[in-house]
Amino acid sequence: MLTYTHNIKVRYAETDAMQRAHHSNFLIWFEAARIDLLDQIGLPYQEIESKGYYIPVLSAQVEYLKPVSFNDQLSIQVMLKEKPKVRFSFQYQISLNNELMAKGSTEHVFINKQNNVTRIPDFFTEKIARCWD
Amino acid sequence: MLTYTHNIKVRYAETDAMQRAHHSNFLIWFEAARIDLLDQIGLPYQEIESKGYYIPVLSAQVEYLKPVSFNDQLSIQVMLKEKPKVRFSFQYQISLNNELMAKGSTEHVFINKQNNVTRIPDFFTEKIARCWD
Amino acid sequence: MLTYTHNIKVRYAETDAMQRAHHSNFLIWFEAARIDLLDQIGLPYQEIESKGYYIPVLSAQVEYLKPVSFNDQLSIQVMLKEKPKVRFSFQYQISLNNELMAKGSTEHVFINKQNNVTRIPDFFTEKIARCWD
Amino acid sequence: MLTYTHNIKVRYAETDAMQRAHHSNFLIWFEAARIDLLDQIGLPYQEIESKGYYIPVLSAQVEYLKPVSFNDQLSIQVMLKEKPKVRFSFQYQISLNNELMAKGSTEHVFINKQNNVTRIPDFFTEKIARCWD
Repeated sequence: MLTYTHNIKVRYAETDAMQRAHHSNFLIWFEAARIDLLDQIGLPYQEIESKGYYIPVLSAQVEYLKPVSFNDQLSIQVMLKEKPKVRFSFQYQISLNNELMAKGSTEHVFINKQNNVTRIPDFFTEKIARCWD
Repeated sequence: MLTYTHNIKVRYAETDAMQRAHHSNFLIWFEAARIDLLDQIGLPYQEIESKGYYIPVLSAQVEYLKPVSFNDQLSIQVMLKEKPKVRFSFQYQISLNNELMAKGSTEHVFINKQNNVTRIPDFFTEKIARCWD
Repeated sequence: MLTYTHNIKVRYAETDAMQRAHHSNFLIWFEAARIDLLDQIGLPYQEIESKGYYIPVLSAQVEYLKPVSFNDQLSIQVMLKEKPKVRFSFQYQISLNNELMAKGSTEHVFINKQNNVTRIPDFFTEKIARCWD
Repeated sequence: MLTYTHNIKVRYAETDAMQRAHHSNFLIWFEAARIDLLDQIGLPYQEIESKGYYIPVLSAQVEYLKPVSFNDQLSIQVMLKEKPKVRFSFQYQISLNNELMAKGSTEHVFINKQNNVTRIPDFFTEKIARCWD
């Protein structure tokens, strides 16, 4: 499994009139953690794009367990539990002081510049394999 | 069932470097459609809040079927298929020229100002019942 | 002068914990109005981009006169008061029921795919001239 | 003068179809830096709100000097150059590897829960005075 924990402070712009972080931001935080995981294992997303690939989101789901507030210091843990085949997914857990606030998952594929689904490029598979615990 | 179709044009600010609408916006559009549905049946969300209630999102899920681009004129259809009990859900379909681009659902409860889950207030249940087809 | 009025309802996602529309959204609404103005005169921004040009924002300024709230139905008036030379600007007025809530302006240039400032392409100048009052 | 430097990495969600950070995000980053400055001098914004005050933005202006890209590691420097009277302003400089990418300013007042402008509360003035260099 690969995992990474991305830390954020909830921005004022991310709050809503209910005095919570708006629920759409959780997808943005998931993505930030996912991109940091890729950075950390030497696969920066901008290099993946510069090689002609994108990794769009096919589906996403979030469970909001506790309300998250302005300036909360959240840990966004992202986990890749299975080595990517064509279709692969990340799991997420958002915590505040070790209390679980939300969890979720996203599913992905690789596509090329023509918007067609492709097999996962070798440079990606190999790097993942090398870093796998 | 109750249903409403909210129309939007994809804003430039909603696009990302992949030249698509960023996937987090779909939750924002779902919400805009949901609020319009409530407006239309005479239950504007600001009145629900002014009576001391909130309707937070407990969970959300989205399937992204086709890429959505800048300035696309999207129809966001929201459906309430079962009369709300304590926990209730909305379904969504996003279309471009009658082609289905995405679908999803959100789950909700009513909470009060103290952040406690409450039974659904009568004014809400009655209005829903009166508008039900 | 060219002018266009874009109408929006303030989305819940656009509010913040101060129970107002967050001030960053005003730039997004200005942009939506600007793009609608271009659409209306037959210069859709996606065509400008497909011809190899972008019109980035060089500077922006906003004055927030009155607080704007959830579900407010705002009119975003955009004005192009002088025919574009190399550097040109749009003015904006945001109103709620004819009361002025905010105003602002943005400055722009044309750039090409290589990120260099270019003179304004003829197809743009000519269309502007034809629509000018 | 009081100053603080807030560091961010540009999120994918903050990019737009022009492959840059969308210009509205700069106001959000200014705000995050401003809030960190207040945190650092012992005036966390959530405490200011819990005492019944808000510090809305009266005006904002941004100059975009260089395009900012996905995953850029930006330094957002915020400066309070004059001790707050009723109306006060912050200045900002956004840098990437010591190159100035953008600059701007925001103007503010204190308001109370009734949305009325108030004099700046003593706890605020005193804390600012104590930290002033």
